[in-house]
Amino acid sequence: MSLPPEFALIARHFRPLAGPGALDLLDDAALLDPPPGRQLVLAADAMVEGVHFLPADPPETVGRKLLRVNLSDLAAMGAEPLGYLMTTSLPRGVADSWIAGFVAGLAEDQRIFGLSLLGGDTTATPGPACLSLTILGTVPPGQALRRAGARPGDAVWVSGTLGDGALGLRVLRGELPGDAEGHLARRYRLPEPRLALSRALRGLARAALDVSDGLVQDLGHLCRAAGCGAEIEAAAVPLSPPARALVEEDPARLLLALTGGDDYELLFAAPAGAEAEVARRAAAAGTPVMRIGRFVAGPPEVTVRGRDGAPLTLAREGWSHF
Amino acid sequence: MSLPPEFALIARHFRPLAGPGALDLLDDAALLDPPPGRQLVLAADAMVEGVHFLPADPPETVGRKLLRVNLSDLAAMGAEPLGYLMTTSLPRGVADSWIAGFVAGLAEDQRIFGLSLLGGDTTATPGPACLSLTILGTVPPGQALRRAGARPGDAVWVSGTLGDGALGLRVLRGELPGDAEGHLARRYRLPEPRLALSRALRGLARAALDVSDGLVQDLGHLCRAAGCGAEIEAAAVPLSPPARALVEEDPARLLLALTGGDDYELLFAAPAGAEAEVARRAAAAGTPVMRIGRFVAGPPEVTVRGRDGAPLTLAREGWSHF
Repeated sequence: MSLPPEFALIARHFRPLAGPGALDLLDDAALLDPPPGRQLVLAADAMVEGVHFLPADPPETVGRKLLRVNLSDLAAMGAEPLGYLMTTSLPRGVADSWIAGFVAGLAEDQRIFGLSLLGGDTTATPGPACLSLTILGTVPPGQALRRAGARPGDAVWVSGTLGDGALGLRVLRGELPGDAEGHLARRYRLPEPRLALSRALRGLARAALDVSDGLVQDLGHLCRAAGCGAEIEAAAVPLSPPARALVEEDPARLLLALTGGDDYELLFAAPAGAEAEVARRAAAAGTPVMRIGRFVAGPPEVTVRGRDGAPLTLAREGWSHF
Repeated sequence: MSLPPEFALIARHFRPLAGPGALDLLDDAALLDPPPGRQLVLAADAMVEGVHFLPADPPETVGRKLLRVNLSDLAAMGAEPLGYLMTTSLPRGVADSWIAGFVAGLAEDQRIFGLSLLGGDTTATPGPACLSLTILGTVPPGQALRRAGARPGDAVWVSGTLGDGALGLRVLRGELPGDAEGHLARRYRLPEPRLALSRALRGLARAALDVSDGLVQDLGHLCRAAGCGAEIEAAAVPLSPPARALVEEDPARLLLALTGGDDYELLFAAPAGAEAEVARRAAAAGTPVMRIGRFVAGPPEVTVRGRDGAPLTLAREGWSHF
């Protein structure tokens, strides 16, 4: 009695990803002894072909992006990765080589970030590939970074550079100059979860999240959670050299850095006066950070000021699926 | 600054499902203090519209089935429910009433089974609805039921009745007589996770799983895990009265009870001679059980014997997505 094709596929491709507790993916569920003295941190994000990744994206980066957008949720909480479960709904005719590439990408990032597959499910779909991942992490009790907690006067900080992902998507779609091997396309396909930085900010950052739907919209989440507003300087928003070149060519593209999403950078509040300490911890974590504005008393609104100090009017604040 | 539509949808529909640790679905992840002195049990199952449920199925039962197929994985391990994360990829034009019904079904089953939503993600898809759920449960350390452990001579037991789900699907498709409000269709739409029975079998059952892909195929999983074979009597396989009526009309339909899947009954091994104890515990759990065969020495093959004792030849052993 040989294995049905579905289980042969799981054994061939997914079992090598399985870690302790996964029971070789042979049981109905995984068994995990929770690490003593830690809180669990749990998040789940889905990616749909044609919505969150492009059909032509290499399967390796699709797997890595799926894991990384979830790792970025752990980063937003200051947590450390523990393991993950994954469900993949794939078109019935999916090439074996696509699955092999997808799994190879996951395997590489498992090594880099130190976690492994605990379990999941593989199904067919008549539609586009639909991938869902649930990530588990841990944090010392009471030390998770939260969205609520910013206070008027706190500085608004962001890691890395913004807009690369949104610009990279347009490069890959042929709407902007550039190629699929360039920095921007790579940033769209392979975000960098800011795990080291977020751990370093425990006890210092008053609030944090990861920018996934656009800087202005996500900063609005911090404002609503805090019951205050925020003002940022458009000119202070950090751009990569290729992004800066595109924005200098057409300043309207700056809006993509402010509202485009797919950044997976850490956005956080830190007390005024803590600039040197933030810089010191970020440098120790090897992650560039930039102060881009401040939280202000008032309604939960985000004001973006241009070079002349006047507020910019934004056509949209960020991404919404509905 | 009002909430973007996606977040308004989450606040309106999903936040009422959120339990302790979910942080009102306002953070990037949930925070959970693992219950002391317990092992965690983790499983994830996806459901795709047109594959695992029908477009015309009421959204209430779609939500409940999504939760119940995952609860059935906890039952397979003898675990108790703790919480769940869910990602929903929905067609952009999905009716608000569909989401409301889906959530109402989840809310009802949260009350019945004693668990709540911890987190997740809501995205759009250009394809059919794609739903993924990760469930967390707990079990006393070392007491989980596992797939491996059956020994030659052990009895093969199954809970409830088999074939109802597979027959119900054909009723709903109009391929068999019956209606959408009948027992079979209801069993397709609303499986019954055998949580009370599985807890009662801890320490007695030597191996267990839930029948999701077909009795013969899933019994094959127990055989492979144990390194032995199994023989079952087709006539002993428990059928509900409506299923029995359909099988008497056309005996070929018995194959659906043997290989059709969508049963979510507990299949388990118990030592020969433990019949009375199994029956006692099952009665206390309020769940009917039936002894349908035994494990035998030999290769991991499943033999199904007809009324004359001769092995039946099955065109297929169960469901495979690929």
